[in-house]
Amino acid sequence: MANQKKMVEEITAMDEDFAKWYTDIVKKADLADYSSVRGCMVIRPYGYAIWENIQKILDGMLKETGHENVYMPMFIPESLLQKEKDHIEGFAPEVAWVTHGGTEELTERLCVRPTSETLFCEHYAHVINSYRDLPKLYNQWCSVVRWEKTTRPFLRSMEFLWQEGHTMHETAEEAMQETLNILDIYAKLCEDYFAIPVIKGQKTEKEKFAGAKATYTIEAMMHDGKALQSGTTHFFGDGFAKAFDVTFAGRDNTLQTPFETSWGVSTRLIGAIIMTHGDDNGLVLPPKIAPIQVMIIPVAQHKPGVLEKAQELRDRLKQQFRTSMDASDNTPGWKFAEYEMKGVPLRLEIGPKDIEKGQCVLVRRDTREKYFVSLDELETTIANLLEEIHNSLYQRALDNRSSKTYTAANLEELKDIAQNKPGFIKAMWCGDEACEERLKEEAGVTSRCIPKEQEHISDHCVCCGKPAKAMLYWGKQY
Amino acid sequence: MANQKKMVEEITAMDEDFAKWYTDIVKKADLADYSSVRGCMVIRPYGYAIWENIQKILDGMLKETGHENVYMPMFIPESLLQKEKDHIEGFAPEVAWVTHGGTEELTERLCVRPTSETLFCEHYAHVINSYRDLPKLYNQWCSVVRWEKTTRPFLRSMEFLWQEGHTMHETAEEAMQETLNILDIYAKLCEDYFAIPVIKGQKTEKEKFAGAKATYTIEAMMHDGKALQSGTTHFFGDGFAKAFDVTFAGRDNTLQTPFETSWGVSTRLIGAIIMTHGDDNGLVLPPKIAPIQVMIIPVAQHKPGVLEKAQELRDRLKQQFRTSMDASDNTPGWKFAEYEMKGVPLRLEIGPKDIEKGQCVLVRRDTREKYFVSLDELETTIANLLEEIHNSLYQRALDNRSSKTYTAANLEELKDIAQNKPGFIKAMWCGDEACEERLKEEAGVTSRCIPKEQEHISDHCVCCGKPAKAMLYWGKQY
Repeated sequence: MANQKKMVEEITAMDEDFAKWYTDIVKKADLADYSSVRGCMVIRPYGYAIWENIQKILDGMLKETGHENVYMPMFIPESLLQKEKDHIEGFAPEVAWVTHGGTEELTERLCVRPTSETLFCEHYAHVINSYRDLPKLYNQWCSVVRWEKTTRPFLRSMEFLWQEGHTMHETAEEAMQETLNILDIYAKLCEDYFAIPVIKGQKTEKEKFAGAKATYTIEAMMHDGKALQSGTTHFFGDGFAKAFDVTFAGRDNTLQTPFETSWGVSTRLIGAIIMTHGDDNGLVLPPKIAPIQVMIIPVAQHKPGVLEKAQELRDRLKQQFRTSMDASDNTPGWKFAEYEMKGVPLRLEIGPKDIEKGQCVLVRRDTREKYFVSLDELETTIANLLEEIHNSLYQRALDNRSSKTYTAANLEELKDIAQNKPGFIKAMWCGDEACEERLKEEAGVTSRCIPKEQEHISDHCVCCGKPAKAMLYWGKQY
Repeated sequence: MANQKKMVEEITAMDEDFAKWYTDIVKKADLADYSSVRGCMVIRPYGYAIWENIQKILDGMLKETGHENVYMPMFIPESLLQKEKDHIEGFAPEVAWVTHGGTEELTERLCVRPTSETLFCEHYAHVINSYRDLPKLYNQWCSVVRWEKTTRPFLRSMEFLWQEGHTMHETAEEAMQETLNILDIYAKLCEDYFAIPVIKGQKTEKEKFAGAKATYTIEAMMHDGKALQSGTTHFFGDGFAKAFDVTFAGRDNTLQTPFETSWGVSTRLIGAIIMTHGDDNGLVLPPKIAPIQVMIIPVAQHKPGVLEKAQELRDRLKQQFRTSMDASDNTPGWKFAEYEMKGVPLRLEIGPKDIEKGQCVLVRRDTREKYFVSLDELETTIANLLEEIHNSLYQRALDNRSSKTYTAANLEELKDIAQNKPGFIKAMWCGDEACEERLKEEAGVTSRCIPKEQEHISDHCVCCGKPAKAMLYWGKQY
């Protein structure tokens, strides 16, 4: 029997140990492998195929909105990184330093990019001269490195893959609009393609990006009630541009400074997908990014005609869906468990009796419902089911979030919820960083965001009781 | 007038200073920009769009032949790099070393990958158990770093983008077949998509890859007669697998060692395209990888109806070709020169008189021929012209190579050719590395490859006069 060594092993139950469940899935669904480099992972073919699908969708959305791809060096000279004061302070503790090239010691050490604002600004100073050169809407797909102490595959790793957009605009308004437009694109990506509902909002001063004037975020709730910051967009004002001497001749012929944004999403999104939709049988993939949408499993495949029919179906369905077939000599039961573990949205079983009746069996990964489907109606049924699975995953995630979102009017309430009920807490805030600090210390929660859609919960800050400025989402995060 | 600062400046003539001509094109066709990191370049949108087209084509070819994409860490611990003796000897002098993470000194330094055989082998040891797990056909798209002393954009840079395939096979024969199959794919990529004829052959012992048993190459001749090694494939035997303890249970249930290959092409291909097809007016792009295949330039665009008609044509042609339009207020003459510089294969001019006649003007970039084309036949004509341009570029490159390929029967002849006639020299070789060394010292040429298609030029080594083993191509290289 093929793959004798590989058995569909039990994974830890979610409710028992969510963290262990997560790493079990990463390993057993063949998404990633550990390497001998601390905190760096090998992204295996099945995991990388998910990333390729994400890239293809987002890259299309960015190109449609006028963005162009470029590639910047992976190294940043120390002096360049230091040009913007807040930025270097934020990143210096977590960069990897190259000090030697071959056998020679470098005269100036280079950091491996943790993000590329500095390099983009340096280049923009070369290519922006007139207002006619604006806006510049550049993006790059690359890997970046942040020297993290504790790491987990996809969620927080020393090296990760991402896209980073860096744009320059003639006015602050236009740059702010870009910052918010991209946030909308990220939200659309999560909701329409990954079936993950997100909350759009602004980060507090304390939580914003090093060097930014304002940071926006999409926050998703994982199955266990914890928050995952899934994408951020930053408005820089003209701070970086000034530090890097980026100027342009304006419409009135005066020398002006452009306004900048940056924004990124990363392979962390794969972590979000795992932790939003997965269950005790393994991964559950949203159909639009699943590397395999339909897995065909011939039943009693040694019987005459079965394999031929299964192959015929595979070739037929491939025209329209990402379809694969497992004709190995593992048992059907082994295969069922294997592709459940891998989260394939639909399983198609076909055996001698089905062929006689001109039908096959479709099984949904999310609900495990079975459908007997006439082969004549296969494409329509599959298209409908994939759509239904997407909607149902989205609804389930939304229900999970709703049922785990609480409101707190005072500190005691908030602490009680934080201690006993994992989830989001909506509570008012006075705008003072000291209150954020206190909530972190006493309740273990951080501010997730100041949501775009505000609600009035009380007049007073949940922490200090002073007049409230805004409602925030609070929670524990990955 | 838009882009006042940007004028279509003269570039150095090819015959005057080919190296200067090359860097002029890189800069003035907006392909790349220098950065403050020595030897690292910024790939600008127009250059990166070429790379994306190359990636798309090659990635498709690799997936069709069963290869899967993965992602390995960018760092390699020093001890891992040292596992294969020849490999570390070859690469140690040219790697960048990370010694600090944040403020901490690392206990073991990490090199930034110059290539990833070691990481792939480490991973393969985890995932290969049985002959049923073979072959493993993995590829990754990433950037790598080699600490080069002298660098030139695309041709030789400290950091470059590439794909690296690493495969494991049950038998040596199968691995060798993969090594040769990929060489064929690389040759097809160059010839059918870039219109660059290549010579397929094997590298000598002296020129082969560090750690390989055999290295194969495709060698292209640039316009100036110099050779550019454009892609290589390596057969490793079981050397790496043994060094990394990769084993599998064979069909006979004994423990066996698999056989490995690796292979790569890089952004250097963009350099090959520039230097094969470019001319004194700038870049000349082969249509299949040109980011813009048809550039529409409205003539007398202020006259009623012109811009509308040009937009209509753009929207119509976009369905089938990569089409763009320049409706800026630069003069048509400025635009003609600009898109010649950028190597756009076809220019489409349309003005009031053309509209009256129901026609437009098409101008080929390669020959500058003009065609008056009825708007009814536009798609067919453009498709035919793009095909013709491809064929004509290929033929011109082939003619250039033929006219600059010489044969030498003895050392004096070879030295004379090497000194006076830039190009390839076909000459016999005894198989002795000492003769290679001597030809390099005395004639300044290196062995390019032992071509698959052998010819008999004489019985004796061109250098030492001993009995010859094979015919080699010799030349000066980039």
